[in-house]
Amino acid sequence: MKIDLSFNAAQFDDLQLRDKTIVVIDVLRASSTITVALNNGAREIIPVASIESAVKISGSLFGEVTLRGGERNGQMIDGFNLGNSPLEYNESAVKGKSIIYCTTNGSVAMAKSRYARVLIVGSFLNLSAVVDFLSGENKDFLIICAGRLNTSGNFSLEDAVCAGMMIQKLMKNESVEVILSDSAKAAYALHKSFGRSILKMLKNSEHGKYLAEIGFVEDLKICAAVDSVPVIPIQIESKIKLRIKEELAVVSV
Amino acid sequence: MKIDLSFNAAQFDDLQLRDKTIVVIDVLRASSTITVALNNGAREIIPVASIESAVKISGSLFGEVTLRGGERNGQMIDGFNLGNSPLEYNESAVKGKSIIYCTTNGSVAMAKSRYARVLIVGSFLNLSAVVDFLSGENKDFLIICAGRLNTSGNFSLEDAVCAGMMIQKLMKNESVEVILSDSAKAAYALHKSFGRSILKMLKNSEHGKYLAEIGFVEDLKICAAVDSVPVIPIQIESKIKLRIKEELAVVSV
Repeated sequence: MKIDLSFNAAQFDDLQLRDKTIVVIDVLRASSTITVALNNGAREIIPVASIESAVKISGSLFGEVTLRGGERNGQMIDGFNLGNSPLEYNESAVKGKSIIYCTTNGSVAMAKSRYARVLIVGSFLNLSAVVDFLSGENKDFLIICAGRLNTSGNFSLEDAVCAGMMIQKLMKNESVEVILSDSAKAAYALHKSFGRSILKMLKNSEHGKYLAEIGFVEDLKICAAVDSVPVIPIQIESKIKLRIKEELAVVSV
Repeated sequence: MKIDLSFNAAQFDDLQLRDKTIVVIDVLRASSTITVALNNGAREIIPVASIESAVKISGSLFGEVTLRGGERNGQMIDGFNLGNSPLEYNESAVKGKSIIYCTTNGSVAMAKSRYARVLIVGSFLNLSAVVDFLSGENKDFLIICAGRLNTSGNFSLEDAVCAGMMIQKLMKNESVEVILSDSAKAAYALHKSFGRSILKMLKNSEHGKYLAEIGFVEDLKICAAVDSVPVIPIQIESKIKLRIKEELAVVSV
């Protein structure tokens, strides 16, 4: 199994990503928030690349079961129902809802992956579940770290460290032969350098510091909790849903 | 002094980079080859982003003193005078010549940096010279690793390790206070993980393996030789020239 990795999604367009197996990682906070939302009973997440798309799509859907969630500069978008904190996506807010979801980096990477053969969403929260899924697939895959648009060379340390932790866990599975691209090797090394305390790494990261500054320090604890929400968000018919094993059979055909 | 870093140039356009102090690193091979060429007496290097630009520009210049150099897939471009091996850029080939220079990654990153306040070209060959220059400037700067288009997430391990080595050397200079972006911290960590033997790292890198396969294994030794060509290629009026100290005064105004 060859593992390739990109430290951001900026260079991709959706046709380049067609038919690949893709894990999108946006630790702070899209991947974590989607995982929490689906685990709390959200019906589906519809990731979009822009506020314009969110408005267009929600115009054609019924209001009662549809919410709009996401952020710009970490804050809720005007006219939306939810921001981007996993704390907001509790059962009473999201159960049974379709959520049109627009963020600066994560939802853009997911929207670009719309033609993937398999698209799953990975974070520290569901790390081992993602690794088990990828081991079971035993196919080449690409990790797309969402990164941070126009900041630190579009690079997010926390996404790279999370990817590196997945790769390390996969390599422990002796039934899988793993070949790493240079970028995947780099992520593996970054996990070794920065992965001893995930919460400390998040608190010291540029994005983590920014979120703490604007009042979301609690989110860092939630996003650092490895294997706390062991479910897999997976794309089914252009929407991200909770994976149940019956559905995998359909996707794998 | 704040150090920012990008692992590739794909997301930039030239206006974003206006007025910055930039180091472009393309270890294999643009940065190394330019450094060798200027040290061997080339008058100037004119980096361009495409073969079309190279042809257009050379049409308006006199043939005798102008050469076209560069690569596609590591090989010389049809109708060009030189490929991209530093071995080709010896004194008898380049002395006194202007070289229009087109490569897949390095020359594109340099062309995008055309409006920089200061643009210098860095590699292992001139690593300490670049670090001394940046210490003397004592200004915020951005390292652009040229990366590899459409390969390994546009990431080049060798560029990242070279950048990390520069950062490590800069941090040893106690008269300079250094603040690192997350991406610069990552490069620093990658140098720690992979920088023990530069030649071995190059030989194990994807790009290094490819160059060895197509007959350029000697280039790896040349590109791994730290501080072997202690000169600084610097942009002066849209051309890359050998820096001489008198010219710095003009650039810094």
